Amino acid sequence: MPETDIHDLPPAIQRSLLEARERVARLHAELPRWNLVVWTAGNVSERVVVRGDGRPSAEDLLVIKPSGVSYDQLSAEAMVVCDLRGRLLDGTRSPSSDTAAHAYVYRRMPEVGGVVHTHSSYATAWAARGEPIPCALTMMGDEFGGEVPVGPLAIIGDDSIGRGIVETLSGHRSPAVLMRNHGPFTIGPSAEAAVKAAVMVEEVAKTVHLARQHGEPLPIPEEVVDRLYERYQNVYGR
Amino acid sequence: MPETDIHDLPPAIQRSLLEARERVARLHAELPRWNLVVWTAGNVSERVVVRGDGRPSAEDLLVIKPSGVSYDQLSAEAMVVCDLRGRLLDGTRSPSSDTAAHAYVYRRMPEVGGVVHTHSSYATAWAARGEPIPCALTMMGDEFGGEVPVGPLAIIGDDSIGRGIVETLSGHRSPAVLMRNHGPFTIGPSAEAAVKAAVMVEEVAKTVHLARQHGEPLPIPEEVVDRLYERYQNVYGR
Amino acid sequence: MPETDIHDLPPAIQRSLLEARERVARLHAELPRWNLVVWTAGNVSERVVVRGDGRPSAEDLLVIKPSGVSYDQLSAEAMVVCDLRGRLLDGTRSPSSDTAAHAYVYRRMPEVGGVVHTHSSYATAWAARGEPIPCALTMMGDEFGGEVPVGPLAIIGDDSIGRGIVETLSGHRSPAVLMRNHGPFTIGPSAEAAVKAAVMVEEVAKTVHLARQHGEPLPIPEEVVDRLYERYQNVYGR
Amino acid sequence: MPETDIHDLPPAIQRSLLEARERVARLHAELPRWNLVVWTAGNVSERVVVRGDGRPSAEDLLVIKPSGVSYDQLSAEAMVVCDLRGRLLDGTRSPSSDTAAHAYVYRRMPEVGGVVHTHSSYATAWAARGEPIPCALTMMGDEFGGEVPVGPLAIIGDDSIGRGIVETLSGHRSPAVLMRNHGPFTIGPSAEAAVKAAVMVEEVAKTVHLARQHGEPLPIPEEVVDRLYERYQNVYGR
Repeated sequence: MPETDIHDLPPAIQRSLLEARERVARLHAELPRWNLVVWTAGNVSERVVVRGDGRPSAEDLLVIKPSGVSYDQLSAEAMVVCDLRGRLLDGTRSPSSDTAAHAYVYRRMPEVGGVVHTHSSYATAWAARGEPIPCALTMMGDEFGGEVPVGPLAIIGDDSIGRGIVETLSGHRSPAVLMRNHGPFTIGPSAEAAVKAAVMVEEVAKTVHLARQHGEPLPIPEEVVDRLYERYQNVYGR
Repeated sequence: MPETDIHDLPPAIQRSLLEARERVARLHAELPRWNLVVWTAGNVSERVVVRGDGRPSAEDLLVIKPSGVSYDQLSAEAMVVCDLRGRLLDGTRSPSSDTAAHAYVYRRMPEVGGVVHTHSSYATAWAARGEPIPCALTMMGDEFGGEVPVGPLAIIGDDSIGRGIVETLSGHRSPAVLMRNHGPFTIGPSAEAAVKAAVMVEEVAKTVHLARQHGEPLPIPEEVVDRLYERYQNVYGR
Repeated sequence: MPETDIHDLPPAIQRSLLEARERVARLHAELPRWNLVVWTAGNVSERVVVRGDGRPSAEDLLVIKPSGVSYDQLSAEAMVVCDLRGRLLDGTRSPSSDTAAHAYVYRRMPEVGGVVHTHSSYATAWAARGEPIPCALTMMGDEFGGEVPVGPLAIIGDDSIGRGIVETLSGHRSPAVLMRNHGPFTIGPSAEAAVKAAVMVEEVAKTVHLARQHGEPLPIPEEVVDRLYERYQNVYGR
Repeated sequence: MPETDIHDLPPAIQRSLLEARERVARLHAELPRWNLVVWTAGNVSERVVVRGDGRPSAEDLLVIKPSGVSYDQLSAEAMVVCDLRGRLLDGTRSPSSDTAAHAYVYRRMPEVGGVVHTHSSYATAWAARGEPIPCALTMMGDEFGGEVPVGPLAIIGDDSIGRGIVETLSGHRSPAVLMRNHGPFTIGPSAEAAVKAAVMVEEVAKTVHLARQHGEPLPIPEEVVDRLYERYQNVYGR
């Protein structure tokens, strides 16, 4: 795959990139707002489709936060554009060090339009024990369709994080995976949907954590979980 | 019951609807302010009486938040108006998916003027275990007159949530019910009173949760709870 | 003791009252800022000395928050003035329902210039168990000179809360008492010092609570506590 | 070492002092932002090198927060300048009572350009038990290169706090030490790096605390910790 020169792209794609930069910048503000990140940790990305027929492919681009930049400085202009090998195509700063993992997910999961990574405290606490979050809340039935699964211990720097995400989430209802000893990654058809999943996984991680501190949560029958999930997905059309 | 056309209502009712829209919009801001909700979860509604004698009836209307709208965008104009069957009468967006439960409560409990639903973490943790919050704080005597009760596991989409709320709270001092595996619903003579109850139920859920982490709270004698409740209800006239 | 007419007071006292209203209004903003209160709970008061020689007496006045007013509306004008029997002398709203307890403290403890009451979660959790907070932090040595003591279960409406505070704190180093099943009251030479104590008691209540969740805090030798307390009180001159 | 008169310093040093005042004032705002401090607790300092060759020495100066000043009033002008014996050289208020500890660290650790002290709740809870935070998160491998160590119980007023910090951190990868029964001190090549370490130590203290509440975190193999640390330090060049 040859490198793309961003200025050779058709005007429609360039407009899509601008819009994605604005959305991704704005969505980053949701991470500190809901207490999912500290300092410059955490990142949101969005896929930009480049094929004329509008179908996702391995030639797509992604917009992501640059590395080590304060949440106060996350303007649309500060965002960076990479190809799906994680190579920087546009931007004055280095892409987030998690870019390779995001890119891997977009390459292998064409239905994914947005990816989010945080170290939100309660979700990461489950990840540190390598323990899935059991489905003890109707809200979990709605959003996750069951438990939130755990992915492997994977080291940054090669494809092992991306591979761990894809292997865990492929064919799973949950849009969130707890990467072992690391933290949650979430996916969605758009960056906004992935941010929502990041907010919700921390919320359910906290609530079930609290519930278990004084006993066991009551189980929700599996067919009830199925009904919750189907209704919610139809109504909100994830 | 035939459908109401909102524009045929007398001017006084239309003014009441406008005022209720403003109050309900403003009160929604209290939910994220006191950390009771994340993302677009949670909702506040208020009854608008339509009968000329000012008495509540099954013909009343309710004002509620639309579904899936960010807390930043909750203006008075964005609120929606429904009848007490949960049918949308005025508004450009779908009503909250919890509208049927709110409407059921207004139909069956004429003394209720406001209903609130959240998934606030500590209250929902008690709900996940199906465990009432014992009355271990003078503040609980004041506000709840005893323990906060648990309602059944009920599924959204029919009247079972509304029925569970009404059956649990009818004849109970507490304005809050913890719906099993789901979260708290609160009621009050006004939307503001129901919001206050939503704030207080999370506060006492948290404090009693914390107290029990290092032993058992000291019990408050029943006659003390009664005196607290009676004094507080007389002073503040719930 | 006859009732005082506020407008008959000398101009110097009237100026003191104005200044106290401003300080007390401003200090109330610290309570939600440090997460010590929800809704309209919590209150700060300050003594205003009326005797020409500047010495505190039972004829002094107090400035306190009115009852049931939102933290957004706490202007200097909204504050109310009472005598030390808790009777309203100036203000358009009812004084806080805790005014009698504040007034009792000022009557019996002439060294006290400010009183604060909150239901802050961690401090109230210790209060619910009736358990003093052990001195496990150098910060506690500094600020409290040892453990934070517990007062009796007392019911609002007569002098029993005030008496419980005075009996527990008289001759004690701690400026904070955990009233059983109720919450913390703090005192200080000024309203600001009492607010600081309210902030600090929640902080140490939380930190020692957390420490004990995974074992016992290491004890601090008593002579070290004494040295911390003496140094700090000399430096900051409480 | 004779006392320095600040106005006799070369213009370049005076400019450095001005810039350091601005940075240190701005960085103090990060402490309440990330919930690391309450009231006026906590402090950030930065070394200003005075030698013409730009190499740190015991003749350097430090810029630090004055004692007992509210976080709302921390302007660059309010900051104070001390020598590395902790003596005030410039400023209208007393330096923080922790200045001696900061100064000791700068005297003994020439590689340190910034020091931060907080009483952040979770880190201080580990400190109260005298228990190091085990390395259970990839983020800890990145930032701390292993566990976060504990320093001795040391009393303010002489060099024992500074000595405890230096002895614990010398030759250790971690930029954070949990001073027993007291709280965390962090160091870095700049004040900003030390603030980041203060934010991160509270984050990992909280997450590992939560993880252990429902079992033991899974261990991360030592060679994985080493790879995480080396990669991260090379990329971000601490």
